[in-house]
Amino acid sequence: MSETKAFQEYYPDDASHCYGCGRNNPHGHRLRSFWDGGTTVARFTPEPYHTAIPGYVYGGLIASLIDCHGTGSAAAAAYRAENREMGSAPALRFVTASLQVDYLAPTPLGPELELRGSIAEATPRKAIVEITLSAAGAVTARGRVVAVRMPESMARPAAG
Amino acid sequence: MSETKAFQEYYPDDASHCYGCGRNNPHGHRLRSFWDGGTTVARFTPEPYHTAIPGYVYGGLIASLIDCHGTGSAAAAAYRAENREMGSAPALRFVTASLQVDYLAPTPLGPELELRGSIAEATPRKAIVEITLSAAGAVTARGRVVAVRMPESMARPAAG
Repeated sequence: MSETKAFQEYYPDDASHCYGCGRNNPHGHRLRSFWDGGTTVARFTPEPYHTAIPGYVYGGLIASLIDCHGTGSAAAAAYRAENREMGSAPALRFVTASLQVDYLAPTPLGPELELRGSIAEATPRKAIVEITLSAAGAVTARGRVVAVRMPESMARPAAG
Repeated sequence: MSETKAFQEYYPDDASHCYGCGRNNPHGHRLRSFWDGGTTVARFTPEPYHTAIPGYVYGGLIASLIDCHGTGSAAAAAYRAENREMGSAPALRFVTASLQVDYLAPTPLGPELELRGSIAEATPRKAIVEITLSAAGAVTARGRVVAVRMPESMARPAAG
């Protein structure tokens, strides 16, 4: 697995404040996603306070990690589909249109979590990424992210 | 709307550490959900760092709020279905089996968010809650939470 530079580290500076994966957000999770052959992988160790019922990981964190790994994987897949290096202009940045998470079993709090993404569909405008989340080798959640190319209008927000 | 006591404030102490809605989690969101007639409502104002693209709310937070409002609404609906007061024994606590979120439009960061839940199904073992999330009066996301009665085994975790 090549862990030289994460997908999210290729995002432009002004698109790197995401609470889930932005390198410029000191409060956030700073999730980092990579290619591992034809699939994508990210790893994250929750904090003790990321709990649901004591002993288990909070489902909202699981959804968040799947979301950010999904949009990151979508961007990476779009570059690959165009035979382009990540980071080359114009930037390809995706946002989530829909997120589906199935919680298959309680996720123990403590072990590092591993997210693996498979690209089910990748076009310049839309990507679908199927993701598994596992803890200590057991898959505890499955996700599906439908990501769409970020509208130009989002780069110039009215608010904020 | 009766805002005397939130659904989550009826949870037993040992089920009140959830990052999304636990009153005993000082790091978390402490979401509070209430009945408003036949629907459920919760309000939450994101922090400035809960951002995705600058100016907009991070989708993982939206998923998290929908998740916790969904499981809280499921518990409240289960008590109602049994004509029981919340807080009466035995405790009815629900966990998420699946979460679906459709992001209809970017959610502006700044205004208070409002979540409204409709109970689509409520049995002693399972509930389905349909949720809208709105900002400044406009619905920006829709969610669907399938919640199931918490397995007894989760109250005595092996980890943690």
